[in-house]
Amino acid sequence: MADEALFQFLHSEIIQYVNGVECGESENGRCVSKLENMGFRVGQGLIERFTKDTPRFKDELDVMKFICKDFWTSVFKKQIDNLRTNHQGIYVLQDNKFRLLTQLSAGKQHLEHAPKFLAFTCGLVRGALSNIGVKSIVTAEVSVMPACKFQVMVQKM
Amino acid sequence: MADEALFQFLHSEIIQYVNGVECGESENGRCVSKLENMGFRVGQGLIERFTKDTPRFKDELDVMKFICKDFWTSVFKKQIDNLRTNHQGIYVLQDNKFRLLTQLSAGKQHLEHAPKFLAFTCGLVRGALSNIGVKSIVTAEVSVMPACKFQVMVQKM
Repeated sequence: MADEALFQFLHSEIIQYVNGVECGESENGRCVSKLENMGFRVGQGLIERFTKDTPRFKDELDVMKFICKDFWTSVFKKQIDNLRTNHQGIYVLQDNKFRLLTQLSAGKQHLEHAPKFLAFTCGLVRGALSNIGVKSIVTAEVSVMPACKFQVMVQKM
Repeated sequence: MADEALFQFLHSEIIQYVNGVECGESENGRCVSKLENMGFRVGQGLIERFTKDTPRFKDELDVMKFICKDFWTSVFKKQIDNLRTNHQGIYVLQDNKFRLLTQLSAGKQHLEHAPKFLAFTCGLVRGALSNIGVKSIVTAEVSVMPACKFQVMVQKM
């Protein structure tokens, strides 16, 4: 419980600070991209620790399952609720109660702020995948808080 | 293990980002003070959760013991190694292996960077104490990495 709270509070502080620095309406993209980059580096670091004693992954789907189960549980204390794929490099990871959104009230009035609360995690996933050798683009969307979908598009070399 | 890593990586990212924003030699103080403020707010939030089901504290020393044991263990996965007081409102908390310094190599060559790595935690302690009703000034010093002393000066009303 303590750890979750620490991460959540720290995450909020970062958003607030970065948002204050990269301020202005038109700069919203810069704030999101800074947060995404931070997540990327943290994801890279974390996956190294997590996979230290893990057997080699069989294939891309195996990697994704690891992200949805072990990785997600370590960071967010729950698994991804649903993983879908078109078997052509697109994966959709659905979290029905995404921890970093539970502080925002449900409903539509805060939807515009959602990208800031998701950017770090998009980077986290992209960084983790990148260190396992899977290059990707990760985006996120929210339709009803606090449920959230992360879409991973694997970039073929 | 995962949680510790997450906190450590996130903490590093914050230092790097804040340091980049509040850059310049003369601005070092501003960087430290931003980090301290972030820690303050996080400490305020954390202590609320931690003390939810705790019996009322007997006195100031009781509060300090709580910080050294329960609070420190939750955040840093170990207790403070030594607590001293002059019984006049000054407390020295010594951590012989402070987790947020273990990434820096031992020795004296990085000592000048230590304040940036301690500022968040100084704020964390100040924020936690402040929400229990103990107003204080918290400073830190390192003589040999990664050992570290936090000095709490309680401000009498």
